[in-house]
Amino acid sequence: MTYANRMQLLKPSAIRELQALENDPEVISFCGGYPDPAYFPREALAEAYQIVASSEPMSLQYANSQGDQRLREQIVERMKKDGVECDPSNILVLQGAQQGLDLVARLLINAGDVLLTEAPTFLGALIAFNPCEPTYVGVPIDDHGLIPEKLEAALKANPGAKMLYVMPDFQNPTGVTLPLERRKQIVELANKYGVYILEDSPYRDIRYTGDNLPTLKQFDTEGRVIFLGSFSKSLAPGLRLGWAVADSEVIQQLLQLKQAADTQTSTMNMRVVSTFLERFDFDKHIANLRNVYGRKRDLMLAGLQQHLPDDATFSRAEGGLFTWLQLPPQMDSDDFLKKHLVPKAKVAYVPGVHFFPATGERPLNFARISFSCASEKSIVEGVARLGEVLRNYPR
Amino acid sequence: MTYANRMQLLKPSAIRELQALENDPEVISFCGGYPDPAYFPREALAEAYQIVASSEPMSLQYANSQGDQRLREQIVERMKKDGVECDPSNILVLQGAQQGLDLVARLLINAGDVLLTEAPTFLGALIAFNPCEPTYVGVPIDDHGLIPEKLEAALKANPGAKMLYVMPDFQNPTGVTLPLERRKQIVELANKYGVYILEDSPYRDIRYTGDNLPTLKQFDTEGRVIFLGSFSKSLAPGLRLGWAVADSEVIQQLLQLKQAADTQTSTMNMRVVSTFLERFDFDKHIANLRNVYGRKRDLMLAGLQQHLPDDATFSRAEGGLFTWLQLPPQMDSDDFLKKHLVPKAKVAYVPGVHFFPATGERPLNFARISFSCASEKSIVEGVARLGEVLRNYPR
Repeated sequence: MTYANRMQLLKPSAIRELQALENDPEVISFCGGYPDPAYFPREALAEAYQIVASSEPMSLQYANSQGDQRLREQIVERMKKDGVECDPSNILVLQGAQQGLDLVARLLINAGDVLLTEAPTFLGALIAFNPCEPTYVGVPIDDHGLIPEKLEAALKANPGAKMLYVMPDFQNPTGVTLPLERRKQIVELANKYGVYILEDSPYRDIRYTGDNLPTLKQFDTEGRVIFLGSFSKSLAPGLRLGWAVADSEVIQQLLQLKQAADTQTSTMNMRVVSTFLERFDFDKHIANLRNVYGRKRDLMLAGLQQHLPDDATFSRAEGGLFTWLQLPPQMDSDDFLKKHLVPKAKVAYVPGVHFFPATGERPLNFARISFSCASEKSIVEGVARLGEVLRNYPR
Repeated sequence: MTYANRMQLLKPSAIRELQALENDPEVISFCGGYPDPAYFPREALAEAYQIVASSEPMSLQYANSQGDQRLREQIVERMKKDGVECDPSNILVLQGAQQGLDLVARLLINAGDVLLTEAPTFLGALIAFNPCEPTYVGVPIDDHGLIPEKLEAALKANPGAKMLYVMPDFQNPTGVTLPLERRKQIVELANKYGVYILEDSPYRDIRYTGDNLPTLKQFDTEGRVIFLGSFSKSLAPGLRLGWAVADSEVIQQLLQLKQAADTQTSTMNMRVVSTFLERFDFDKHIANLRNVYGRKRDLMLAGLQQHLPDDATFSRAEGGLFTWLQLPPQMDSDDFLKKHLVPKAKVAYVPGVHFFPATGERPLNFARISFSCASEKSIVEGVARLGEVLRNYPR
């Protein structure tokens, strides 16, 4: 990669630019993809820190680069309950799932290699992949996520494709979820065309309606699926703790890159999460998260239903933190945000264009709306104001 | 980089392979480059965790990717006291200094670019740099570190060289320290030949004798020096906290790579170190570390002086964790370790060959001996046994 190329790829995150709006107390922001700090298990984590810091001297020392042994066993237990057969040799503890995106791309992607993503896709993944200079091929999605027929067409058109990046559960930014049949079809297509799948599921625990669906990893018979999980939404992002599940050979290769990148994840934070899982009721905590975020989601969707004009639609996320707004085709959501929504209604979202890979079609009439951080009152108020400005927008 | 190339580069760390020896309770190990957990400021850190976890809800949330603002200010204060003019825009908080090695290499080094290192050099740096596929040029060192004349010869012979990696203070593995005049000369040579300097100084606080010397960064007039500092030795490595000091433009570029790599360092750990620096006496803690490690170092050097045969020599580290043993030229320190030292004396060190870049001369008759983790008793006993086996080794 040339220096100029590298710098060109390193655009500041559009979402972080929008933080200025979030910090304006007059603006109701639906921008951030952050969990609500009010729902962090603060007391339990404070107790876990206290226990570990005072009783485990080695929690301050270097540790196994693959991750604390007990924590990997606990992750295995949870993955097994979720239908994925694995053992601690299949687990790599990460500095957040974001690190998994970076390490997997560095392992598999050379400059110019075709990398398939959903279009739109997670912005943080594009940021992680960009330095490897992939050739992005965006695969269209619908209300049920990635469309297998479109994926097969893309695989046929790109015979050397290396990897498919996919977020099957409550996708960021759209909130859509892949149904069971598509999950099977996508793994079969990966086998048929010889590509790896990077399955990213940070919101998996946060489901409000419908049944839990198997991971793609569960259908993986050829060691092609690398699953990424995260404690950022289910516990707290400030811990920076995620994990990869993959064939032990792939894990060993990722481990070498992890050692090169940062030696290991914080021993203290690994021990604290392990202690939390040991001593506190994680499932009860998750049930509470589903309850409180679910109420926000219901308010958001009910408000959109009530206030949006007929020519705007939105996704009905079964879990996660987002809904995806579709404005009339002639509208530019970024222009509407800056010239109308913020000045007239003091409401903000993230324009959808940022979530499409830089190559390929980048429609302008979408927006990501997060319901995780705003208060229930702000959700009700903000959606009503959004609806009003949108209804009055000249067509 | 091809896949095969990448895998070839990813050799398991030789030091970690030696951990089996460390875990044998019968072996006195001088292998690990770890700090002694007995000297972690455990109670103070436990209190800091308690304070932060119970009184700062945002310590569990996402934070500024460049690093906690207050912590960056505190790092600036310490850097200024150390003679380096800077402000928070010049600081990037890292997931350990190891992450700085990775990010800087990814920013500056393309496959084939010449990267100059001391020969020998820090193994973890080679592990971090290898995936970028540099062409290593090892520059010889003597008892006073990197030799400026040899550096200039290497720069002349490699006109496109990108970067010099150097550890000026108590170098790992040799323990040697660059004198003042050489520091100035090296920065002047970097200016003259247009290369970046990556100055890595994780042991800088841990000096036992002699005067503190200015960093290379202090002499940097052209923004060519990127300084890496670490709390791993002065506080505890399990926190995974280090920092880079560089021109704000370079910091912004490294920040983009940091966001791609892992979004940010753990908010909790950043706040805990900041709180420790605020509420506890860091300088007193460092004075204590100098005292306890200094005693171990004195015992080690006195033992080597007493027991080594005349044809073996060692370095007199003014700080840090290591001394560097030079065996007679015909000896192979790896062979001696496996066939004599471990079986006959139950003592272990790290053979020096691992610390030389894979290209270039790799002499076999050196070994790194760490005095940080062994007890005072084990140091006295282990050095005596080492001396005995070495004296009896047939010449």
